[in-house]
Amino acid sequence: MFDLYNIKDPSFIKTLTIKELKELAQDIRTFLIEHISKTGGHLSSNLGVVEITLAMYYVFDLDEFQFLFDVGHQSYVHKILTGRAKEFDNLRQYGGISGYISREESEYDIWESGHSSTSISAAAGMMVSGKEKRSVVLIGDSSITNGVSFEGLNFVGQFKGEKTPIIILNDNKMGISRSVGALTKAFQNFRGTKFVRHSKNFMQKIFPNFLVAYGHRVKSSIKALFQHDNIFETMGFDYYGPYYGNKIEVLVKLFKRVENTKSPVVLHLLTQKGRGYKPSEEDTSGNFHGVGPFDIKTGKPLCSNPDKISYSAAVADYLLHKREERKFYVITPAMKAGAQLEEFSKTYPEALIDVGIAEEHAAVMSCGIALNHKDVVLLMYSTFAQRAYDEFLNDMARQDLKVIIGIDRAGIVGEDGVTHQGLYDVSMFMAMPNVVVTMPRNVKEAIGLFNYAFEQKHPFVIRYPRLSVKKEDYDYSYKTDLKWDILHDGKKKIVISYGEDINRINHLVMDNNLDIKVINAKCIKPVDEDMLHKLFKDNLDILVIEQVVASGTLYHKILEFKEMNGYKSKVIKHSFGSESKIPHGKISEIYKHYDFSDDDFLKLLEE
Amino acid sequence: MFDLYNIKDPSFIKTLTIKELKELAQDIRTFLIEHISKTGGHLSSNLGVVEITLAMYYVFDLDEFQFLFDVGHQSYVHKILTGRAKEFDNLRQYGGISGYISREESEYDIWESGHSSTSISAAAGMMVSGKEKRSVVLIGDSSITNGVSFEGLNFVGQFKGEKTPIIILNDNKMGISRSVGALTKAFQNFRGTKFVRHSKNFMQKIFPNFLVAYGHRVKSSIKALFQHDNIFETMGFDYYGPYYGNKIEVLVKLFKRVENTKSPVVLHLLTQKGRGYKPSEEDTSGNFHGVGPFDIKTGKPLCSNPDKISYSAAVADYLLHKREERKFYVITPAMKAGAQLEEFSKTYPEALIDVGIAEEHAAVMSCGIALNHKDVVLLMYSTFAQRAYDEFLNDMARQDLKVIIGIDRAGIVGEDGVTHQGLYDVSMFMAMPNVVVTMPRNVKEAIGLFNYAFEQKHPFVIRYPRLSVKKEDYDYSYKTDLKWDILHDGKKKIVISYGEDINRINHLVMDNNLDIKVINAKCIKPVDEDMLHKLFKDNLDILVIEQVVASGTLYHKILEFKEMNGYKSKVIKHSFGSESKIPHGKISEIYKHYDFSDDDFLKLLEE
Repeated sequence: MFDLYNIKDPSFIKTLTIKELKELAQDIRTFLIEHISKTGGHLSSNLGVVEITLAMYYVFDLDEFQFLFDVGHQSYVHKILTGRAKEFDNLRQYGGISGYISREESEYDIWESGHSSTSISAAAGMMVSGKEKRSVVLIGDSSITNGVSFEGLNFVGQFKGEKTPIIILNDNKMGISRSVGALTKAFQNFRGTKFVRHSKNFMQKIFPNFLVAYGHRVKSSIKALFQHDNIFETMGFDYYGPYYGNKIEVLVKLFKRVENTKSPVVLHLLTQKGRGYKPSEEDTSGNFHGVGPFDIKTGKPLCSNPDKISYSAAVADYLLHKREERKFYVITPAMKAGAQLEEFSKTYPEALIDVGIAEEHAAVMSCGIALNHKDVVLLMYSTFAQRAYDEFLNDMARQDLKVIIGIDRAGIVGEDGVTHQGLYDVSMFMAMPNVVVTMPRNVKEAIGLFNYAFEQKHPFVIRYPRLSVKKEDYDYSYKTDLKWDILHDGKKKIVISYGEDINRINHLVMDNNLDIKVINAKCIKPVDEDMLHKLFKDNLDILVIEQVVASGTLYHKILEFKEMNGYKSKVIKHSFGSESKIPHGKISEIYKHYDFSDDDFLKLLEE
Repeated sequence: MFDLYNIKDPSFIKTLTIKELKELAQDIRTFLIEHISKTGGHLSSNLGVVEITLAMYYVFDLDEFQFLFDVGHQSYVHKILTGRAKEFDNLRQYGGISGYISREESEYDIWESGHSSTSISAAAGMMVSGKEKRSVVLIGDSSITNGVSFEGLNFVGQFKGEKTPIIILNDNKMGISRSVGALTKAFQNFRGTKFVRHSKNFMQKIFPNFLVAYGHRVKSSIKALFQHDNIFETMGFDYYGPYYGNKIEVLVKLFKRVENTKSPVVLHLLTQKGRGYKPSEEDTSGNFHGVGPFDIKTGKPLCSNPDKISYSAAVADYLLHKREERKFYVITPAMKAGAQLEEFSKTYPEALIDVGIAEEHAAVMSCGIALNHKDVVLLMYSTFAQRAYDEFLNDMARQDLKVIIGIDRAGIVGEDGVTHQGLYDVSMFMAMPNVVVTMPRNVKEAIGLFNYAFEQKHPFVIRYPRLSVKKEDYDYSYKTDLKWDILHDGKKKIVISYGEDINRINHLVMDNNLDIKVINAKCIKPVDEDMLHKLFKDNLDILVIEQVVASGTLYHKILEFKEMNGYKSKVIKHSFGSESKIPHGKISEIYKHYDFSDDDFLKLLEE
């Protein structure tokens, strides 16, 4: 047994035997399963890259190489090897270590990825500016098919030299849900060749000479008898693969083979996502990609509450019902599992299109569907919607196309932390023509807004949070309008907010018998001007609470309305400033530390 | 001679002979050169696609096919053939036809592209939602190497069927400037095969049988003796090419060959950018990509004024001087010509990196350079910066990396129109942590801000307009601070603005002896709070003029400052609302129609 807690830095690995590396891999797996079962986190991707990470540290000299982890959620093994095992009790907890790469945490953390597919471009920047260390980039099969990765590959492939990146393609045949797209099919073809299928014995017999001959010395006309050229070779990379990425002895030989190459390299490694833990090995829908605490024996979530439903699931249920009466398409970029669309996908396979990690394509394709006069619902997390800003603005909003945009995980998202908070989408969409921006205060209102959206003609944003709420019997035909509602009347102050926050506020007002007027601003763009006139005529202080980075959001719109109309009421802002960087932690804890808890709200209301 | 003015719709083409089609091509070229020499516009790309566009209309039945033009600036021939020749006197003029695809103009205009690389995804959306017409997409070699195109190709390549798109790759070996990247190299390889070099006779001899055999029937092992598989075949496309794209008889045969295919198709056509007009044929730096009015005989710009300098050129001059004393990198996405970087590139080839149309990669790569502790200047047009919103926010701003971001063509851009106005970048950047946002009022101040930016540590935006100004001898060592300046004192009103607008305002105030305080807010984020306190204490009306879509921009920040500090002065907004869609036309004319002319300013000042 290795004492993982005692690891200070990864130098000890160099002295191990292959056998010891295998034992270490086993110990790390046990450690990961035990810890993530308690804290939650990204499990299956990390179980898949144990051997790759070990072999990286075993072979590559850190004086000459640096490691970049694309979309840092597969960096847990790296974190353990760089002395952070003892921090895993607080993984993703407030004040604890991040679930992603963090330069504040460690000098070994080079590139703070967060969103996918940026690592190759970052490595390219270091290469062109004379970084002395060669970059080794670990990237998954879903991330590499994203447009940003492609731009990075297309750039890097032009160069030769000993500082060109080594790209380790961790191909677990899954991506976050199942990865999609033509290249994925192409990968399947590579995988399907007899070389891979029989390579277990084959490779060990002829390795390493075969690798050299096969990879480089054979003329392409003969080579083609064995295998097609592939996209990476076309782009200028030396391509090696595919090889089994969970066999440490193979990896060590392979990494040694390429460490002194003078070209950019792609190493295509087949790994088993979730390897070493049966429930995650058998998970085909991505449930073990990001998990909450779970029971190790059964693999079942610990805090699953059958009386509760997440907003994602509630929206998926609604769409399932809606589809019975009306045809529409649902587009999502790699969020089929996250958006709970498995059942919708089974029931209406022709209507659900998961395009993989391709937010820009998803947005433009939705425009194409709208131009074809068909209804389309585009489901995306708030943080990933940022990737498609130009397409939302220039393709969808400017052309005024009817796309219903479900922005999931709007607001504080909790354990994923600073790179994933859903705090910018309101600011984004408020600047765009024709777009309607809404946020329901409960599932019923979400249904009401979706039904409204189907009947209108514009880009229509419906935001909802990463929260669970009490399950109810929903009336799926309920329809609401875009007017603001007075949830509670009062004479001392006015409070305006939207989403679940306004419910919390309303409960606080009622529970504490506060003489406060509570306004549910379910439509943020356009604002309800009739209501605003009435509110300003009350001549009361107006408190605007928004769980967003407030730049051009409701607070500014209300200030502008006040100014334009010469009203006098004081308007008080409560939201996040543009300099905010909100870390990871339970949502409730973030609320507490960033003035969004019930106590904070109550103080504001009583001020 | 064809009477182009008399064309009502493209149906007449079907009855022409090949010989007549060639005559028509010649007439269209003459027409384009004559008209664009007067109005300005996109010349060389349109001269390159005359035969392709004619062959598209000649072969494909419009009851079964529809045409999508990627980045619509190569749609002029299409505009002529669909009855708009008589509008070309007003091409890109206020009230005239657009230089891009416009659904308002014509039922033949299907996809309003504007920004590049969206056409494949748009066609994908129509395909998956049962559009009965098959899409034929015309896309250039620069656009197809962008990440969004790749995501689109990766999606479309999975499908089979008679409605899968036919993608015509117009490969003019140039892109907007020279196109770059590994794929471009790969294209060069295709082009370099003897099949292309000798194909003039070769193809005509064996065509069309060769095409069939070559493209599909030969086993890949034999095929590879001739030519590598390429990226498109890897992705699932039937690939045909490369063929000469300026030979109408070749195109007609080729299009007929593929019109009934049941797979997605890529037709790789080599065209000569600028074909038929010597100065544009010989232009290797992209000057005839987008031109102003020019003298047909010489190809020289008509309104070139040696006493004037564009902001782009002034910034390029500054960078050239700055590079003498200090090392830094300049990154630009396909804007080497537009940003006037030819000389910089010749003098410091290792320091100038044009990444092609890859804004996201450009932004992330700049982050990699900054992380390597090197200085980097990222030059991008305002409108294209929208493509990298997530990377600016999540990679650059969040990590607080020192990247100097030159935002060119900020504000109204004139003839390019609604898809290219630079009106959103301020709203974008104001929401992002750590970012400094500035706009100089003249070239001297631009130099001062660049010099300031080199000495500080944050992402630093310097915006400048698509305007020319009087050339002066500049002091390249001039450095300014971020404080706001009082350009003129006065007691009746305060006006705050930034960029060239504040100069215009100041001149109006001086020329008309107005008793108005004129404030140059050269730094928009953070605002100059000391100055704001003083201004509000004057208790005068404050007029805020911003040439942006005002959502979270300076006006909102000033309103917020007023509210937070309990000040009373009235704050008046003059900018564009979020519902604005500003069309094409001369900048001066747009100013006139959208209340930004000197007369409008004067009225505001005197109100």
